[in-house]
Amino acid sequence: MNIILFNEEEIQDNNVLLKDARAEHIVKVLRAEIGDSVRMGEIGGWLGRGTILVLRKKYPFEALLAVELTEEPPEQPALDLILALPRPIMLKRVLSQATALGVGTFHIIQSRRVEKSFWESNLLDPGEYGLHLRQGLEQAAVDTRLPEVIFHRRFKPFIEDFWPRQKEKHELQLIAHPSGEKTLADLVCGEQGRIALAIGPEGGWIDFEVDLFRAAGFRCCTMGSRILKVDTAVVALLGAVNALREGISV
Amino acid sequence: MNIILFNEEEIQDNNVLLKDARAEHIVKVLRAEIGDSVRMGEIGGWLGRGTILVLRKKYPFEALLAVELTEEPPEQPALDLILALPRPIMLKRVLSQATALGVGTFHIIQSRRVEKSFWESNLLDPGEYGLHLRQGLEQAAVDTRLPEVIFHRRFKPFIEDFWPRQKEKHELQLIAHPSGEKTLADLVCGEQGRIALAIGPEGGWIDFEVDLFRAAGFRCCTMGSRILKVDTAVVALLGAVNALREGISV
Repeated sequence: MNIILFNEEEIQDNNVLLKDARAEHIVKVLRAEIGDSVRMGEIGGWLGRGTILVLRKKYPFEALLAVELTEEPPEQPALDLILALPRPIMLKRVLSQATALGVGTFHIIQSRRVEKSFWESNLLDPGEYGLHLRQGLEQAAVDTRLPEVIFHRRFKPFIEDFWPRQKEKHELQLIAHPSGEKTLADLVCGEQGRIALAIGPEGGWIDFEVDLFRAAGFRCCTMGSRILKVDTAVVALLGAVNALREGISV
Repeated sequence: MNIILFNEEEIQDNNVLLKDARAEHIVKVLRAEIGDSVRMGEIGGWLGRGTILVLRKKYPFEALLAVELTEEPPEQPALDLILALPRPIMLKRVLSQATALGVGTFHIIQSRRVEKSFWESNLLDPGEYGLHLRQGLEQAAVDTRLPEVIFHRRFKPFIEDFWPRQKEKHELQLIAHPSGEKTLADLVCGEQGRIALAIGPEGGWIDFEVDLFRAAGFRCCTMGSRILKVDTAVVALLGAVNALREGISV
């Protein structure tokens, strides 16, 4: 936890009272004392610091902080991720790691090689997956806005109906696929606009799915011949896109 | 498991007899039958295919394969990773994910912010960490050579004595650090030679360590202002380096 996030409803007269893992974190990990200030942010709002007014250092932990928010959050990450629903235990890690690296919207979709049972996981409840998004923000400590997560239980309606009509326009739409005719560097270098990146399930997209992505304007990019697990692929691709976009400074 | 790896000692008259998780994988995941061929490789040797001669489809699983190895392994990955020893549970994942992405040698080192207890983990035994390296090779399915892993329990002797004298020469030595004056793209773009990449512990390198890395010729690179967990940072940085090295095809 590199930033302590709170909800709007938790503020009272510019103070925030914490009684949960966040208070414990201030005591045990930050080892802060009364008068110290810690990095804080309001979910969906501004970032700044909180000065510790009251601190209970043993269970039940408690911290009262006077909060001063002085920084606007950065621009929304200019990348949306389309992800074939992974195994729930992997989805947890992917949501928090990808959020830490910066994602605007997750579109979690059906694909032929997704196991039907994955759709029954309670991780699909906002109260469950929200925790992992929040962990990502708490880790990266630069943003307060939770990515949006949209589940699409049917592939064809997603790619043929939903995607073309959605409001977000992408300068570049990429699908990670071994048959990619271009490298990621070719496609991404210098691109500053919004990118949509589609990453398949374990076992990959089937040809039919790749064809529909292509018909929707997606371009295939390859990461070389190595076969990666979904969690490795997501993080490696986001790391690559971020690094390629930073580009060469002069 | 996208390739089935075996040791030299397991070959008898060009046949390999499997009685462990590999045989179970052939039965349950690949759902292969007698006469089918599966991708195989000899640890440290060539890659090719194995044709199933005998298959026992229930516990205890067993598979006898006639192996034909026709492909040389690729060049050794042109990247060595220097990693402050992470928490053992994280080290497991890092070893297999980084091996899947391609690492020549892991130098796992002490750093001020590494917890002493981490050095007592039995994951430091070759028999233990070797499993995770192997998982990485089995996942990526392009290489048969296990990365080398060298543990360095003292920081100063590593950076001042060991590192300058080691035989491997690096064209580029990078340390990931927020104070980096250059982006990764600036430093890596087009570099085809051997790269050493140093990634710190949770909490980061201390200034003294950064100074010694710099004195040894390392250049600081930044991945932006996001604070990443070690496992996320390793995979994101390797993904970025791989993508930047692929470069722009004409």
